[in-house]
Amino acid sequence: MVLHFYVSTSFNFQIFLCICFASLGYGENVDITPKATAVFSSKYPLWSSTDDTAGNEADETNPEFFTLNFSRIKIPFEITLWVLLASFAKIGFNVYHKITVWVPESCLLISLGFIVGGVMHAVRKEPPAVVSSNVFFLYMLPPIILDSGYFMPTRPFFENMGTVMWFAVVGALWNIMGVGISLFAICQIEAFGVQDINLEENLLFATILSAVEPVAVLSVFEDISINEQLYIVMFGECLFNDAVTVVLYNLFNHVAMMEVDEPAVILSDIGGFFVVGLGGIFFGLLFGFLTALTTRFTGKVREIEPLVIFMFSYMAYLIAELFALSSIMAILTCTLSMKYYVEENVSQRSCTTIRHVIKMAGSVSETLMFFFLGVVTITMDHEWNWGYILFTLFFTLFWRFLGVLVLTLIINPFRKIPFNFQDQFGLAYGGLRGALSFALAFTLPNSIAHKKLFITDTIAVIIFTVFIQGITIRPLLKLMNIRKTNWNLETINVEIHKRLMEHTVAGIEDLCGQWSHYRWKDMFVKFNNRFIRKILIRDNRPESSIVSLYKKLELRNAMEILDTMSGDISAAPSLMSLQLLSDGCS
Amino acid sequence: MVLHFYVSTSFNFQIFLCICFASLGYGENVDITPKATAVFSSKYPLWSSTDDTAGNEADETNPEFFTLNFSRIKIPFEITLWVLLASFAKIGFNVYHKITVWVPESCLLISLGFIVGGVMHAVRKEPPAVVSSNVFFLYMLPPIILDSGYFMPTRPFFENMGTVMWFAVVGALWNIMGVGISLFAICQIEAFGVQDINLEENLLFATILSAVEPVAVLSVFEDISINEQLYIVMFGECLFNDAVTVVLYNLFNHVAMMEVDEPAVILSDIGGFFVVGLGGIFFGLLFGFLTALTTRFTGKVREIEPLVIFMFSYMAYLIAELFALSSIMAILTCTLSMKYYVEENVSQRSCTTIRHVIKMAGSVSETLMFFFLGVVTITMDHEWNWGYILFTLFFTLFWRFLGVLVLTLIINPFRKIPFNFQDQFGLAYGGLRGALSFALAFTLPNSIAHKKLFITDTIAVIIFTVFIQGITIRPLLKLMNIRKTNWNLETINVEIHKRLMEHTVAGIEDLCGQWSHYRWKDMFVKFNNRFIRKILIRDNRPESSIVSLYKKLELRNAMEILDTMSGDISAAPSLMSLQLLSDGCS
Repeated sequence: MVLHFYVSTSFNFQIFLCICFASLGYGENVDITPKATAVFSSKYPLWSSTDDTAGNEADETNPEFFTLNFSRIKIPFEITLWVLLASFAKIGFNVYHKITVWVPESCLLISLGFIVGGVMHAVRKEPPAVVSSNVFFLYMLPPIILDSGYFMPTRPFFENMGTVMWFAVVGALWNIMGVGISLFAICQIEAFGVQDINLEENLLFATILSAVEPVAVLSVFEDISINEQLYIVMFGECLFNDAVTVVLYNLFNHVAMMEVDEPAVILSDIGGFFVVGLGGIFFGLLFGFLTALTTRFTGKVREIEPLVIFMFSYMAYLIAELFALSSIMAILTCTLSMKYYVEENVSQRSCTTIRHVIKMAGSVSETLMFFFLGVVTITMDHEWNWGYILFTLFFTLFWRFLGVLVLTLIINPFRKIPFNFQDQFGLAYGGLRGALSFALAFTLPNSIAHKKLFITDTIAVIIFTVFIQGITIRPLLKLMNIRKTNWNLETINVEIHKRLMEHTVAGIEDLCGQWSHYRWKDMFVKFNNRFIRKILIRDNRPESSIVSLYKKLELRNAMEILDTMSGDISAAPSLMSLQLLSDGCS
Repeated sequence: MVLHFYVSTSFNFQIFLCICFASLGYGENVDITPKATAVFSSKYPLWSSTDDTAGNEADETNPEFFTLNFSRIKIPFEITLWVLLASFAKIGFNVYHKITVWVPESCLLISLGFIVGGVMHAVRKEPPAVVSSNVFFLYMLPPIILDSGYFMPTRPFFENMGTVMWFAVVGALWNIMGVGISLFAICQIEAFGVQDINLEENLLFATILSAVEPVAVLSVFEDISINEQLYIVMFGECLFNDAVTVVLYNLFNHVAMMEVDEPAVILSDIGGFFVVGLGGIFFGLLFGFLTALTTRFTGKVREIEPLVIFMFSYMAYLIAELFALSSIMAILTCTLSMKYYVEENVSQRSCTTIRHVIKMAGSVSETLMFFFLGVVTITMDHEWNWGYILFTLFFTLFWRFLGVLVLTLIINPFRKIPFNFQDQFGLAYGGLRGALSFALAFTLPNSIAHKKLFITDTIAVIIFTVFIQGITIRPLLKLMNIRKTNWNLETINVEIHKRLMEHTVAGIEDLCGQWSHYRWKDMFVKFNNRFIRKILIRDNRPESSIVSLYKKLELRNAMEILDTMSGDISAAPSLMSLQLLSDGCS
């Protein structure tokens, strides 16, 4: 009863917040705020900055302590309010846990965005200024990529590297070409009235739609504990897809803007494609190295350890942005390369904080992104074209399915565990579109005549895939009886045997003169132990990876005991008494 | 050898960073950046936003992938670079640990600021735009206050509440009146040439100088483990001092701006003084309650728990700023009121993260503040007046010593443990001036003719106190053989007896008809257990505070085991084996 009362209070509070901040008026061209400021600014601005005080003081002698100077705190206030709203939404959805089992959180967030957008629309017509491509690329995307990269299961990822790259690069190109050219064909039909969209613009638009969104699908995949291969391929595809999409987007954007097609330019752009990717990787490695090296010296200033990790990763992202390289690749490589060294250098508390903060920032960015998607859908002006939009939806699905089918057929002979039909369906049907497409659509140059149609169309595709596919994927995959997880609980025994096998395979391969990734891994491990670890790890005694696994398991176990203990003290064994016990026993 | 090599590498890198970012040109009126942008913006802006692309595309056909669009990433890049620089400074100072034992970190940071300021000054004349009073009050002060509030030892603080308020309020008023009126007297001497500074402006300036800076002194106090009373009084004075100073600053600022003195206005301002303080406390309590209530429902979304705490505290601060109430009181009250409920509701990992992030943010803000102080000292234009500045230094010291002497004489009869001579010296000599004074000086209205002199003078006082007093306080206190700590290691036995005594005292007082703070505490504990805990704590079974202390000690112990273990695995008992052992034993 009490619980229920407070839940409803909390919900009322949410709605109150929604309304209050919608009516506060967001964005640059605000009706309400200047009025309020005008009313109050004639009074004594107690806390205002120098210039304001000097300006308003002359004609006023009666001081008022309750003055409002909203413009001064506007920016941090708005950010705080959006973040709080996102947190409330997440908390609310999870209090009623039954909802999120059936409807993905992203759908709920978009719906909530619709409501807030409706309120804002009723108050005034402007979409919130906060939603700009700069805000997205500079502040919201980095935490999401950092989150993905930091918690990526490294070993399966590298083991499936080939397949991942195959799907990310060739798959993206396939989708772009397929969707772009089909849509161009559709544009030739007079009835739709979009004959002025040329091939380049269609390809550009197809690029926007080629970026696959990981959040919703991966949470479903995790929930039904899908097999490792499928999970990691989907995950990797989404990550690298982003990079490929952004690079191709820039390429087509450039081509679409040109009056004449110059093959030389296109060739140089294709060369640039590799430069952009490899440049991003270079800066990622550089900053990853610097991060690990810096944490070597933080033994006496534990409190700033997490900050070093965040700032260096962000720096890698920003520097890559500055040089127009793939910033996504940069932050991803930085994270992957530093993670293990950093976690060995920093204290246990710092490590917990780093993980928690990365998860938190990523989670909030994602939440806000879906939320804004809903808000913008309602508040912006749309250009609707039934034919073009329906055909876009159809082609997106069609080429995705066909692409997965063809690409798996080609790659299956090279895989130890080939994809079966259910896997193919999961991969194809899991291709939801999300925030990146949305942000890219907004980045379209204004010179494109049908920019509004493209944005509307992108939103339509996102909402269709997130709602229809997102809601149905779980029951469908369950119905199809897709292969379940083969992830094992880590134990030291399994680890020892796995390593033994890998060494043996590497040795046999060496004898046969064949070099597979086992061989490369072996070489990297040797190089790592001999040189890199000596430079980057503070306490540089050689430590076998078995010991580090043991440490990891011990720590995980200890954390679990702590978590249990804070829940129910009588159930957990007393650590203090345990220590005494062990002192006595030993 | 290897270590030494890398230390020097790290230092070289620091200096490289210093120079590179000084030469990048900070602030709004930058010479270099626009030039760089102009050079590159004519090329293909690969990642630039919509408008830029549309504007630059027309006259350009040859794409370049390596383009710089610095203006776009300027703000996050600058912030990241400053924070990284601050982190490097902290790490650097602590690698050479011998320095920080003798010279407080704040001195080192100001010195580093001098160097960076010198480099920036050589490149161009503008002080960095980043240093504005808005940035200080909206972004840098809240983390510092949050840090102070969150880690404040609650019990000794409330036990010494009276003394703390006495020093904070009466002490501040004493200093302001003393210094202000003395300086006004000095102004009457023709030789100094500052006869145009009137009494109100002198009082305003004295207010700026009355805020005592806790950072440097408290770290010294902690290091020489000074007695609890002195520590908490100094700590509390610094905290509340801030609030009193800001309120009085606004009052005098207003008075100084007026042409004629109106006693009615001053009276209303004095009334406003209480409104400002109590209003801040009200919003603090409100948001503290909301925070605790929200964490009740975060059981399924552990990853955003820390965010809720940060955002609500910041919201309390911003709302208080909006209504021109004491935002410092607001965030302080919010933190104090929510802390215990929040820490019981959130998971152990969230709790670690919250503490670590608060420490981290506070620490970085402080570091940056001292750093900027150094930079600004070099880059700004000064108005130097030997007489006025030297007399300011003298009066600041004189009235501080006299004030502490008089105030302790008055309050000693009411204290269980009176202040002795060494304590008095510690309190008086520990009155360093710091960042708050610096920020307030910059907030001075431009209409004050001698604004530059006041800023210069404030910087002089800060640098004098931080360098001279900060460096000498440790040896002086050691020489004087000041009373050492009486903080006991918490044990359950001590806690039980303490509580028994408190209950007994409360009961005896009840019989005698006397109500002291024991009685109030008893009533609060009852009220807390009966009502507040039921609303705010998720798992609302009545839990005795002994159990919660036991839990706290267990957790601390477990954390220590974890910390040890990650350092040296062989030394720590195995938690896994311990658990097995206990399962076997039970």
